[in-house]
Amino acid sequence: MGARNSIVLFFFMLFALSSASPRHKNKYKPCKHLVLYFHETVYNGTNAADATSAIVAAPQGANLTILAPQNYFGNIVIFNDPITLDNNIHSKPVGRAQGFYLYDRKDTITAWFGFSFILNSTDYQGSINFIGPNPVFEKTRDISVVGGSGDFFMHRGIATLTTDAFEGKYFFSLRVDIKFYECW
Amino acid sequence: MGARNSIVLFFFMLFALSSASPRHKNKYKPCKHLVLYFHETVYNGTNAADATSAIVAAPQGANLTILAPQNYFGNIVIFNDPITLDNNIHSKPVGRAQGFYLYDRKDTITAWFGFSFILNSTDYQGSINFIGPNPVFEKTRDISVVGGSGDFFMHRGIATLTTDAFEGKYFFSLRVDIKFYECW
Amino acid sequence: MGARNSIVLFFFMLFALSSASPRHKNKYKPCKHLVLYFHETVYNGTNAADATSAIVAAPQGANLTILAPQNYFGNIVIFNDPITLDNNIHSKPVGRAQGFYLYDRKDTITAWFGFSFILNSTDYQGSINFIGPNPVFEKTRDISVVGGSGDFFMHRGIATLTTDAFEGKYFFSLRVDIKFYECW
Repeated sequence: MGARNSIVLFFFMLFALSSASPRHKNKYKPCKHLVLYFHETVYNGTNAADATSAIVAAPQGANLTILAPQNYFGNIVIFNDPITLDNNIHSKPVGRAQGFYLYDRKDTITAWFGFSFILNSTDYQGSINFIGPNPVFEKTRDISVVGGSGDFFMHRGIATLTTDAFEGKYFFSLRVDIKFYECW
Repeated sequence: MGARNSIVLFFFMLFALSSASPRHKNKYKPCKHLVLYFHETVYNGTNAADATSAIVAAPQGANLTILAPQNYFGNIVIFNDPITLDNNIHSKPVGRAQGFYLYDRKDTITAWFGFSFILNSTDYQGSINFIGPNPVFEKTRDISVVGGSGDFFMHRGIATLTTDAFEGKYFFSLRVDIKFYECW
Repeated sequence: MGARNSIVLFFFMLFALSSASPRHKNKYKPCKHLVLYFHETVYNGTNAADATSAIVAAPQGANLTILAPQNYFGNIVIFNDPITLDNNIHSKPVGRAQGFYLYDRKDTITAWFGFSFILNSTDYQGSINFIGPNPVFEKTRDISVVGGSGDFFMHRGIATLTTDAFEGKYFFSLRVDIKFYECW
């Protein structure tokens, strides 16, 4: 094998290696790790008894019972959703997810979240505060854990959101994989 | 007293001790500590001259001068309230509390806050940024201090909210006990 | 020169020195530094094709195509703006600024921001999450970087906003000077 081929092979392997591993590999180990689910039913004008969230703001021309026409751009939703340990909405809740999100893109669905988990179970007591973007069509989306109280006093970390289930436009379940890297 | 009884007594005392102290005792000492008050008058349609906040979003069927029927669920309020050093609304302001909160529960009153203190006094110059849940009927509520500028450059900590006073639905004063644990 | 005069001179120099330097001089060196621009066109009822943001909430009596009468107090705006490396809106975008701001003062224009930069360029991949106050008439305004993902995993820092350009009430460009002090 000549020197030229070796060089080509070398660059090919380099490329194969770099594309095999993600660019921003996280080398840190979490000091605490939680996986939780929350389940949301958006109010659509007919489901008042079941709804756990409501559209409270909409762009010009839209209303508060139908998600806005351009990929929901301009809607703000306030929610108070049950949190469970597994992906079964009927499991006993261990807390509530409370806060808001807004839809912020016209040509695809992306959201921005600001909310808290209020946990009240045998294992965990306290709150966890989150903010960050949720581009809902990506398989996983990372938002920031910016603080907390009780068992999560001053904690920071990353929460990875995955859509676990959805039914039409007005029901979804999110899986939240929370890795804390500052634990106190 | 036999050994057996001693052991029972020991465990009883241990239990008594552990239940007497809160589960998540904070063992850290703040590097900076501030107690401030802010005072809010919500616009109700007739108090424009005094109002320091306004309802700007509401769920389907509600309006912007009356807090929403189910424990205010679905309201977003924008505020700009005077901050004082003591609980007297007529004391000289040392800054402004600016931002928003939203009501996020139907069966009781809970809020979620995102706001800043802008301080401009002899003692402190700079901003402090907060987010977190405020379940208003609990005696104390902990939210996160996620950053700041000026005297509070990069600071993190916990702010404990207490309702100091309220009058009807449209006026309240909050006591904010801010403990910084990262000071820079 | 007597001892008395020396002391007076000493205190005078001390005063001159301390007033020459800003009170809260930041002695820290950033571990990463980025300067980016983003450009926003607010929907005003006639510019749907160009608009990158929309008013989605307003106080009682105001509407969603005209900024509210008292220095925009009570408006919430949702945005999705192109980010560029220089202050030319026609430069190739390196990402999107996504989130919201609200106007929170009646007697002057101040805003409060919660948003993310989603960067997707050769140099940077990942998100940066911001919250904080933006008193738009001050030359520079500091908000908090509270977290991030990808290249900005767990980062914290300060972003200094400057108005780079504006045209009437419905178009502006902001310069964002981001200094990270916790880099991971």
